[in-house]
Amino acid sequence: MWHDNRLCELFEIDHPIIQAPMAGATTPEMVASASNAGALGSHGCAMHSKDQFLADMAEIKKQTSRSVNVNFFVHKSPQNMSVDTVNEALKAWYNKFEIETIPEAVETNFPFDQDMCDAVCSISPKVASFHFGLPDATLINQLKAEGIKIVSSATSVKEARWLEENGADAIIAQGFEAGGHSGWFLPRNGADLTGTMALVPRVVDAVSVPVIAAGSIADGRGIAASLMLGASGVQIGTAFVTTLESCASAVHKNSLLDASGDDTMYSRAFSGRLARTIVNEYASSMENVNDLPDFPTMNTITAPIKNASLEQDKPDALALWSGQAAGLNRNTTTENLISTLVKETRDRLN
Amino acid sequence: MWHDNRLCELFEIDHPIIQAPMAGATTPEMVASASNAGALGSHGCAMHSKDQFLADMAEIKKQTSRSVNVNFFVHKSPQNMSVDTVNEALKAWYNKFEIETIPEAVETNFPFDQDMCDAVCSISPKVASFHFGLPDATLINQLKAEGIKIVSSATSVKEARWLEENGADAIIAQGFEAGGHSGWFLPRNGADLTGTMALVPRVVDAVSVPVIAAGSIADGRGIAASLMLGASGVQIGTAFVTTLESCASAVHKNSLLDASGDDTMYSRAFSGRLARTIVNEYASSMENVNDLPDFPTMNTITAPIKNASLEQDKPDALALWSGQAAGLNRNTTTENLISTLVKETRDRLN
Repeated sequence: MWHDNRLCELFEIDHPIIQAPMAGATTPEMVASASNAGALGSHGCAMHSKDQFLADMAEIKKQTSRSVNVNFFVHKSPQNMSVDTVNEALKAWYNKFEIETIPEAVETNFPFDQDMCDAVCSISPKVASFHFGLPDATLINQLKAEGIKIVSSATSVKEARWLEENGADAIIAQGFEAGGHSGWFLPRNGADLTGTMALVPRVVDAVSVPVIAAGSIADGRGIAASLMLGASGVQIGTAFVTTLESCASAVHKNSLLDASGDDTMYSRAFSGRLARTIVNEYASSMENVNDLPDFPTMNTITAPIKNASLEQDKPDALALWSGQAAGLNRNTTTENLISTLVKETRDRLN
Repeated sequence: MWHDNRLCELFEIDHPIIQAPMAGATTPEMVASASNAGALGSHGCAMHSKDQFLADMAEIKKQTSRSVNVNFFVHKSPQNMSVDTVNEALKAWYNKFEIETIPEAVETNFPFDQDMCDAVCSISPKVASFHFGLPDATLINQLKAEGIKIVSSATSVKEARWLEENGADAIIAQGFEAGGHSGWFLPRNGADLTGTMALVPRVVDAVSVPVIAAGSIADGRGIAASLMLGASGVQIGTAFVTTLESCASAVHKNSLLDASGDDTMYSRAFSGRLARTIVNEYASSMENVNDLPDFPTMNTITAPIKNASLEQDKPDALALWSGQAAGLNRNTTTENLISTLVKETRDRLN
């Protein structure tokens, strides 16, 4: 049924569907389940230590022998970690949750480095994907020498060309609608991020590697539409957050199942970088606070607020990552979701 | 080739393609040409006086006997017309263009009213479409009694339901990517506008009238994708701005032909309402000026700046309305564009 087999051949998978790597939602169970169902299971390892990463990969290997993808962030280490302005804005939140000790701003969630690259090569997954660009050429070459395929996200034609020139074997065209962190990494001169429908055909025209559509794809209609736009396959995130295998909090899952999809916003207030969440009190209250420390400093200093919100089972201050297709989310298993997506796409295309 | 014939039957057209009504770009020639090619030609009459409207309609009638659509704005007349803050911000622009007389803020571009409704009924076009909601029930009933089909734009599922309940015979699901004014008219509680890919399937699920996809559709790929998402047809705007029959300025046309599509932004600075333009100096300089008078007051007071920019053949201060598919624009005739779109869609679907 897949006219364009480029992605299936490149990744050795049955269906050109990538279960998106989402730090804080993907589990070894989800990844293995997605891969066993013929899609590309992907683990979000951006917040993993090397030991956690190796332990999770061992678990995944126990559960599947099919292709998997591991994902890392390649942001620059923070230069500006000044939190004076933001601590002023956070006061109300510390008071609200009766938090007495304001945490120090320390660097965490380190960018992908030589040490992690060695760990990845020791496992040799079929695919390694990156967010916010690509690691240095030395690391890319080391991964490629292992036969690992390289993937990253483009939010513009300019970024897609840059990724192809710097070694990407496939490029995700990530639309404005996508949940969680935008992969945006090159200047936009004040321009809005680009929607999936606008981005995909223009990226397809600009590069020769296979293009993966991402952003607001949650059912067979979205997959069939992506293929019509010229994509070789799709990456789907939000729809997997509500699966049985997801480790997202119950509050997060329930927020997604209740969401319309017209109720999300980009916010920098959780991590310091643009990420799409369901609108909540925290994101709204921080909308006009512009003097934020560099990514991912906000992660550390907002941790007690997020934890308190979670403990009280309230969505008010949680990062409720969500794409704009949230209204289509289902409460099911990873395996079921993938077989349903394949069936829906087949029905749509015929 | 059109599996879903609902729109073709409703509007009595051959292809479910609407050439979008764009005040300042559509001409009687474009409208007649689009309708003669089997699409729904649409005239943007939001800035027309009744006499201009009647003259244009007479011209269209001379050139085609096929279905046409006329479009009006149904905004509320401005309450806040205070321009103190904005005049301060505009000073630099008046100085730059050596404009000595700052124009008065007067109401222009009046919302659709009884008088215009009578004029429309006297012509009895096949379709009347509206932006920013719908006119009062009395006017809707008068139009419907003439057999005129009613169309309006939804930017959310909530708006789509509202439009269906208030008499729309078809609903445009207008994505965030669309050029010019967003049809947004119900509160969004801080949420971003929704992308086309995310909006269309959810609107299709929510209403029973035919849904028209709009926003970043410019070639057969976008049309085929829209049909996969469940739309019964498409509305295309930006792609028609560069046709021979368009009365958009040469500067505007050239900006579109040079644009990538990743270089647009929403701005309120031209009219007071959100509208997508190619990023330019004026829109960027006004980005943080929030205290704007109600729509359409800005139209009047920025007129000398726009005119000066136009006279100097510079895009700096012009409203360069553009959707995010601008990178796909072609320099051709309306007739040619439509036949190419139909051919491309057929090729894509087979």
